[in-house]
Parts: sequence; C-alpha cells; structure tokens
Amino acid sequence: MADNRISPAARIGRDVRIGTQTVVHDNVAIGDGVTIGDFCIIGHPASDELADRTLTLGPGSHVRSHSVVYEGSHFESRLETGHHVLIRERTRAGHNLRVGSFSDIEGDCRIGDYTRLHGYVHVGRGSELGSFVWIAALVTLFNDPLPPSEILRPPVLEDGSVVCGSSSVMPGAIMRRGSFAAAGTLVRGEIPPGAVVEGPDCERRGHVATLVDMESGVRHPWMRHDTVHFPEEARDRIERLGAEILASRFAGDGA
Amino acid sequence: MADNRISPAARIGRDVRIGTQTVVHDNVAIGDGVTIGDFCIIGHPASDELADRTLTLGPGSHVRSHSVVYEGSHFESRLETGHHVLIRERTRAGHNLRVGSFSDIEGDCRIGDYTRLHGYVHVGRGSELGSFVWIAALVTLFNDPLPPSEILRPPVLEDGSVVCGSSSVMPGAIMRRGSFAAAGTLVRGEIPPGAVVEGPDCERRGHVATLVDMESGVRHPWMRHDTVHFPEEARDRIERLGAEILASRFAGDGA
Amino acid sequence: MADNRISPAARIGRDVRIGTQTVVHDNVAIGDGVTIGDFCIIGHPASDELADRTLTLGPGSHVRSHSVVYEGSHFESRLETGHHVLIRERTRAGHNLRVGSFSDIEGDCRIGDYTRLHGYVHVGRGSELGSFVWIAALVTLFNDPLPPSEILRPPVLEDGSVVCGSSSVMPGAIMRRGSFAAAGTLVRGEIPPGAVVEGPDCERRGHVATLVDMESGVRHPWMRHDTVHFPEEARDRIERLGAEILASRFAGDGA
Repeated sequence: MADNRISPAARIGRDVRIGTQTVVHDNVAIGDGVTIGDFCIIGHPASDELADRTLTLGPGSHVRSHSVVYEGSHFESRLETGHHVLIRERTRAGHNLRVGSFSDIEGDCRIGDYTRLHGYVHVGRGSELGSFVWIAALVTLFNDPLPPSEILRPPVLEDGSVVCGSSSVMPGAIMRRGSFAAAGTLVRGEIPPGAVVEGPDCERRGHVATLVDMESGVRHPWMRHDTVHFPEEARDRIERLGAEILASRFAGDGA
Repeated sequence: MADNRISPAARIGRDVRIGTQTVVHDNVAIGDGVTIGDFCIIGHPASDELADRTLTLGPGSHVRSHSVVYEGSHFESRLETGHHVLIRERTRAGHNLRVGSFSDIEGDCRIGDYTRLHGYVHVGRGSELGSFVWIAALVTLFNDPLPPSEILRPPVLEDGSVVCGSSSVMPGAIMRRGSFAAAGTLVRGEIPPGAVVEGPDCERRGHVATLVDMESGVRHPWMRHDTVHFPEEARDRIERLGAEILASRFAGDGA
Repeated sequence: MADNRISPAARIGRDVRIGTQTVVHDNVAIGDGVTIGDFCIIGHPASDELADRTLTLGPGSHVRSHSVVYEGSHFESRLETGHHVLIRERTRAGHNLRVGSFSDIEGDCRIGDYTRLHGYVHVGRGSELGSFVWIAALVTLFNDPLPPSEILRPPVLEDGSVVCGSSSVMPGAIMRRGSFAAAGTLVRGEIPPGAVVEGPDCERRGHVATLVDMESGVRHPWMRHDTVHFPEEARDRIERLGAEILASRFAGDGA
C-alpha cells in the first residue's frame, strides 16, 4: 500500500528507509543507506522548466520528517536535514551538508562540503556558500538590493565563515574566508578574511583569532577546538583552513 | 481510498487537484482550477464559534504542501501559498494574495489585492494590509503594545507599502501609502506616504523616490520597474499607484 | 487501517483523539482527554541513547497538526501546541505549557508551569524556563557563547519574565523574576528582578512596574491585568508572583 506513493521510476539504492506517507517522485536518485522520514516530498516538481530534473540524494543522507526537496538538485553525500525543511530546485551541494529544522534553501544555490545551517535559516536564491560555513539560527541571506525588484545580487560566504544568530546577510555581501558576524549583525559589503563584524552598522571588531571565551579559555577560529562534529576524513581540511585563517590576521586588511 | 479524507459536503469546482493525504473539511468551497498540495488541511476547525464557518478558496488558487488553512476565511481568487503555511480563521483577502513558505496569518486580518508576503512572515491577528503591499522574509507584525495584555492594536499597511527583511512592525504602526521600511527596522508610529524609515529607532531617510540601485540604475518606487510579477489585469492599478506615490514626494510631510 | 500507525505498545488514556495519518511510537504514554492533530509524529526516536525513552503527554494536552514530539520528554498536563511544532528529547515541563506554531524546543530543557511561547520561538538545548514565563514571536534563546563551539551555556528565564518579539536571549543570560525585554533586544548578562531592558545594547529602562499603555491606562506587571488566559487554579500563584515583582521595584538593584 505504501508503495503507490513511491514512483516505480525512482532509482533507489540499497538499505534505504522511507517513512510513512512520504512521496517520492519519478525523477529521483537515492543513494545507498539513505533514510527519509515521514510526511516528506522528495523530488517535488518545480514550476520552471529544468534542464536536468534529477534530484540526487547521495549515499548516507538523512532527510527528517515533513521536509520538501525539489527536483533538479544534487547532494553529493550525507545530506542531513532537520524536520520541516524546504530545499528548492537547482541547488548543488557537496558532502555532508546539514540543514536545521524549518530552514529554507530557495534554489540556484552553490554550497561546498561540510557546511552547517541551523534552524530557521533562510538562504535566498542564488547564494554561494563555501565549505565549512557555519550559520546559526534565524539567519537570513537576502538577494534583492532594492526590494522588490528584478535585481538578483545574492551574497557569497567563503570557506569557514561564521554567521551568528539573528543576523541578516544583505544582498551582495561577501564574507571572505573565516570571517565572523556576531549575533544580530546586518552584514553588508565585503568582510575581509578572518574579520569580525557586529551590530546593525556592521562595525569591525578585530580578527576572529582574538575571540576567546573567558570562562573556558576556548579560542577561535573554531577549527582549533570544534572538530568533533565533523567526520574523520574532514579533519585535515579543517586544520589547513584554520591555519589559513590564523595567517590572515597579519596579512593585509584582515585584522 | 483517498476520498474519505475529502468531506462529501465540501463544494469543489472543476479541474481541482488535491494532493496525497490532504484533508478537506465539510465547510469548504473550492473554486475552479484550484491546486492543493500534499499533507494539507483545508477548512481546519476554529476553536471559536464563527458566524460564518465557510472557507472560500477562489478560482485558480494554489496551496502548497503541509499548509493549514482554517475555516471562516475568504480568498477572492488565485491565492498562492508556499509550503508549511498557516492561515487562521476570519481572514478576508482579495485577488492573488501570495504567502511565502512558513508564513503565518493569525486570523481576523483584512488584506487587499495582489499583496505579497515572503517566507516566515508572521501577521498578527487583526492586521490590515492594503493592495500591492510587499513584505520580505522574517518580518513580523505585532499587535500587543504592552505584552502580554488584552489590548489589541494591530498595524495598518496601506497600498504599496514595503517592509524589507527582518523588520518588525510594532503595534499600532501605520505605514501610509507607498512607505518603505529598510531591512532590520523596528517600524513605529505613523510613517507618511512614500517615506523611508530605517533601523531600531525607525529614523526617517527621505522619500522612496530617492531610492536607487547604483549598479543597475533602477529607481523606486517599484511600480516603475517591477511589474512583471503581477498579472496583466493589475498593470493599470500599479501605474496609478506608482504615480500617486511619486506625487506624495512634494506633498506635505511625505518627503 | 489507521491503527497500524499507532503502536499497540503505546499507552493511551480515555477520550483520546488522534488525527489522520498521525504516527504514535511505542514508548508513548498519553493521558486522558488528549487531542492530537493530523500528520503528527508522537514519540519520534532520538538519535542519542536515552535513560528513559518514555514520552508522557499529560491529561488534557492538545498537540496541533504537523507537530513532532520526541521520545524521552515529560509534559505534566495540558500541553498545548500550535501547528508545525518541534519538541526534542529530554524536556521536562510542568502544567499547561503553550507552544506557538513553528516553534522549536531543542531538548534538555526544564520548563515550569503555565509558560507561554508564541510562534517561531527557538529554545536552545538546555534552557531553563520558570513558571509564567512569556515569550513573544520570533524570539531565540541561544546557548553557545562562541559559535561554533562545544561550550553549552544556555540561558535561564525565571518566573514571570517576559521577552518581547524579535529579541534574542544570548548564551548565559539570566533574566531574574519578572524582568522584561522589549522588542528587538539582545538580552545579555544578568537582568535584575523586574528590570526592563531594550535594544541591541540591552540598556536598562527602569522597572516593569513603570510600564503603562497610555491609551488604555493598563499597567504592568501583567499579573495585574492579564490573567484571563490562565486557568482558574493558577490565579492565586499569579497574584503572589505579581506582588513579589512589584516589591522588587524598591529592593536592591531591581529598579
């Protein structure tokens, strides 16, 4: 009975679990070891004509309940979503993207490896996120510089950049490698590598290497201490990225 | 089998498509050419006694998956919602209202024609929105001036007003025709026709006609350039509204 | 047919209504008179090993549609949720917690009696909320002081504290009894009993007893006027709490 919601044309790997009532459309390729929760829609039709309608959920992915993933997107491996997530068409992500509950990736986005979005993160259409990008809850990435208009100027977040909670990344903003926006920042313009910005005026507050939690003595950039949430195979890349961000402290205008 | 979730008492027009598992209650009138996605609840019972329990979804409406629309509301035609939308009871909207994913209209609202709400927009109970109002992602319209209290003082957004992302519209605020709140504004008090406001102190920044995107040369108000997202029949009204907003620049305190 | 989604091992009280398609897992204890909406998941498996996997929904609870409640949590009585709510594992709440639509309680939280969360409220893991706490829409409680890190420093909100809309409560913040954060506040540090704070710099603005709505003459703290939304049995406690908060005005640094 459950099977009539799963298209016979969908390509489904081994050891795949698909939850109660979940709908899988025909243009879907699901890798080995994928788990999909209840009440999901996988390969939801897009309203546009797409050159490639295939939705690829790479091996080891886990999509939690009530999520909707459109056709025409590609997730290399181990995509992990919370509940009630929406991902629109033509998004391409690398390995092990994590997307928190109630988040929305609006389509046409490019995302690297091991990037983490927390809950209620809204990624505007066309955004570019590198690898090891970390975005906290309730952050929005806007793309229209003069709303409403037809101008599309999505932001770019380079490798290892961090956006803390309740911040907004404004259209056209560029966060260079390892830059850091504190909670409640309106991120505008180009933020140099490793730079810290804060507040509604996006004021500069030194370099990420100067951020320290006094009570615990933990020091940023996070690549020094917070690698436990990443798979073993990513550790070398994290170490190299951390070293590059530290080096940016005394190179040019990153300080 | 699917039919036992659709009440036989519901009035359903021609060429209506209703998604997998969606529940349609008995007090619903669905117009011709309506599409409803999967896992929706249409005509959800209200906890209050309603004078008129009918939910009318006018012709050409499209309600996307996982949405909940309560009984006792009326949408004139072509309502379009994203996914995971919630609309409570006793809301009356005109033609072609669009409501983005994860948005919530809390009931007792009045909404004109061709108004657009993006994602995660929270419209407090009793709000009044005119026609051609445009509200970006993560905007909230509050209605309680001294929370928590029994005082209900919902905001009013007149025709053609624009609220950019991550702004909050405070209780009792009145945005006059064509006024514009930049991203991250706490909108308070009465904003004159065409006025631009910005920031946590809702500071005045001139008139919407002075807003220009330098790179593209595009100028506001948006009625000059962004009409492609509206149906043909609305163009005359948009043109007239744009002219009125431009005229407000040199009339009284709107500048 | 519907029954194969409800585990025969679940303990279900009298007069319980369970909606269309809703999934009830085996480790669930549902009290008398509980109502659960459509498309819910009750007792969702946690990824951690839990000492006690039981989810208890006390008598009179009402969980609205599309909500997900994890195993290993306890709600004493009359939990009431909106639609699309997510509650993670190991949360313990007292009587009559209300959680608005699209809200997310991230697990390991302690919550007292009669606390109210509005829509889109994100309660970070490990947060402690007292009784009669009131949190408006789009408020987030953060727990990581140096994101991303392994440090967990969730906030504490004592009895009768109020957080208005679009505010963020920062990691480690302590809101003492009856303190009040205006809309758009970044709440940091320790807020004395009954103190009012406001804005991105969390500036002090006197005592909650000085807050008045000029138009209606209604005065805070809310225990003086807004008791109608609480059940009869809570009135005595509300009165005592209001008196204590009023007394804090002239006691020490609460003013």
